[in-house]
Amino acid sequence: MSLEFRIEARDGVARAGRLLTPHGEVETPVFMPVGTLATVKGVPQHMLEELGVNILLSNTYHLFLRPGTPQVRKLGGLHRFMSWPRAILTDSGGFQVFSLSDLRKVTEEGVSFRSHLDGSSLFLSPESAMQAQIDLGADIIMAFDECTEHPATRERARQSMEMTARWAKRSKEHFEAHKSEVSWESGVGSQESAREDTQALFGIVQGNMYDDLRKESAERTVETGFPGYAIGGLSVGETRAKTAEMVATTLPHLPDDRPRYLMGVGTPEEIVQYAAMGVDMMDCVLPTRAARHGLLYTSEGKINIKQARYADDQGPLDPACSCRVCARYSRAYLRHLFASSEVLAAVLNSVHNLAFYLDTMRAVRHSILLGDLAGFLSGVRSRSLNSPESTPRGRRPS
Amino acid sequence: MSLEFRIEARDGVARAGRLLTPHGEVETPVFMPVGTLATVKGVPQHMLEELGVNILLSNTYHLFLRPGTPQVRKLGGLHRFMSWPRAILTDSGGFQVFSLSDLRKVTEEGVSFRSHLDGSSLFLSPESAMQAQIDLGADIIMAFDECTEHPATRERARQSMEMTARWAKRSKEHFEAHKSEVSWESGVGSQESAREDTQALFGIVQGNMYDDLRKESAERTVETGFPGYAIGGLSVGETRAKTAEMVATTLPHLPDDRPRYLMGVGTPEEIVQYAAMGVDMMDCVLPTRAARHGLLYTSEGKINIKQARYADDQGPLDPACSCRVCARYSRAYLRHLFASSEVLAAVLNSVHNLAFYLDTMRAVRHSILLGDLAGFLSGVRSRSLNSPESTPRGRRPS
Repeated sequence: MSLEFRIEARDGVARAGRLLTPHGEVETPVFMPVGTLATVKGVPQHMLEELGVNILLSNTYHLFLRPGTPQVRKLGGLHRFMSWPRAILTDSGGFQVFSLSDLRKVTEEGVSFRSHLDGSSLFLSPESAMQAQIDLGADIIMAFDECTEHPATRERARQSMEMTARWAKRSKEHFEAHKSEVSWESGVGSQESAREDTQALFGIVQGNMYDDLRKESAERTVETGFPGYAIGGLSVGETRAKTAEMVATTLPHLPDDRPRYLMGVGTPEEIVQYAAMGVDMMDCVLPTRAARHGLLYTSEGKINIKQARYADDQGPLDPACSCRVCARYSRAYLRHLFASSEVLAAVLNSVHNLAFYLDTMRAVRHSILLGDLAGFLSGVRSRSLNSPESTPRGRRPS
Repeated sequence: MSLEFRIEARDGVARAGRLLTPHGEVETPVFMPVGTLATVKGVPQHMLEELGVNILLSNTYHLFLRPGTPQVRKLGGLHRFMSWPRAILTDSGGFQVFSLSDLRKVTEEGVSFRSHLDGSSLFLSPESAMQAQIDLGADIIMAFDECTEHPATRERARQSMEMTARWAKRSKEHFEAHKSEVSWESGVGSQESAREDTQALFGIVQGNMYDDLRKESAERTVETGFPGYAIGGLSVGETRAKTAEMVATTLPHLPDDRPRYLMGVGTPEEIVQYAAMGVDMMDCVLPTRAARHGLLYTSEGKINIKQARYADDQGPLDPACSCRVCARYSRAYLRHLFASSEVLAAVLNSVHNLAFYLDTMRAVRHSILLGDLAGFLSGVRSRSLNSPESTPRGRRPS
């Protein structure tokens, strides 16, 4: 096994755990920043390390298009390519094909689609998506799934879920047959260069917004058997209450001793909520994308830094935050950078929002270890009530 | 005096010196990165510190427009606004009015122009340019000058040079009368909070491409009297040989014991050349602007990182460079970031090019201290001959 998962403490259904990967340990629950094209937009790798990022997500679809997954393999794999010594998770491309590509045609064999970059014709199947992820060499890789649109009829959702279940088996078969063909070097900072298996494949539960289909999908995915399980196909346009309902429906059908990954979620409130429900891993572009749009998360609520009210504000972005940005710069300066479309605005805003997300998750974990998650949650709720602005939906990576 | 200049070693006409400013010491010859809008584009302040930047330049014209120099004053001055504890030099706006604004109308009183941002009508005079720079509070500020176009007739050049000389007197008068009106706090890291004078005003020599006008301008500026002198009005379209000729013409007419600042220059070869000729300070947007266009300076010559030849290149950008970028990332990765228009490309490329410029200037200074500038220069020349690509002209900040 290339991946080990240990649960170190519980508080209700929530868990504080530890993922042991070939590229270091990851404390859970964990928020994984998204590094779509082998870069977390605007943040140098050493600053991610400084922030305490121990695992990040990268998108197979995007790397498949540019620079190409065989090219990344040739350059020593994703860790070496982007000079990232800690853990990486790659998604399978299923969601991006669904959300980004044109002229998509799905058959049992796989998905034909056109590149969102140049319109060229491409094809991804469970086998080729696994091969792409073997080429990238991330520590955790994902089965190739179909993400259904919302709303979808029960019939459509069932057919899709069943195909995803068949694709999960094909994903696993290809992975098991080919995972050892690339002998990854230990790479920068790898702690387990001698390990034979360097990648772990997770299954993905689908089933749209139907309780029974979610349950059946979970059972079939678990029957196929993976070292970890993801809940996919959410945050696709349904209400936030519906997302939570689907997560709650699915979790009891996943094995307690395996990591559980909720894909593409979410806002700061949501990552707390789902960690409390027993989710171990989450990812979302929201902190970095919002940052590039000047939307900043703070302990006092969300801030739109372009507002004129911040032009004279000499205080730190978030007085409760100890990140480099809050330690050094004023809201007035951050507003000036954003209003002037300066590159540094994207850099500093992204660093702060990631710090906020990571600190939030560390605080959740700490409260689980202390057995005081309830106290932590009531604190979060009372702060949310004071939040000056509402928070928009989380989005999946794109 | 808020500024002290000590010459520590000489090698021919070249000097290794030290500027003592209210915000720390600066070893000369020095290259000053340009932080147009109170940010060196794409580089967080702590990374500038890491690079050993001890003085940077910021543009009064740009800050006058946005966020406004009174606003920066209200926020505690430029050092505090951008959280930069080391020295700052601001230009007067004269060059930007010349290069950026529309519908410029120059009279003895000053310059009426329209903002390049929104077309609004603005006016800068020696007095208002001084006031703007007093409001900003930089350690070194510049007299308000007129930069003539190239080519210009002798008559036009003479009239302009004479007006610049009159403007220099008016600049000094306004500065002397008003420099103490803002009582700057010590600010971040200031070493000399008790000093009364916190700013020093430099004069600027003009005279277009005419030897005798350059000489006369130098003499008249020195007669007015400043703690340092700049050579302005170059790099405006003339040949590189002409620039060098004008610098050579001017330098002997500037006092030996005062810092000499060549504005808006230049390429790596040029900054070496002018330091060898006895220039102490230079600035240019070239390293950061070229970086954003994927043009990278290395000890092996200039690289256009977007070229396909770098797609498979796992080596560092510059094997002789010890900056963070060269220590960590491959050319293949930098090419991928640039080809994908990633924000991180601008950040990493800018950091490297600045490192290259600063390392170059440190090497020049070191060779002056050792009395081996000639040896250093012959090494530079032999490397330049091996450079795979020619180097375009340097440009003034914009």
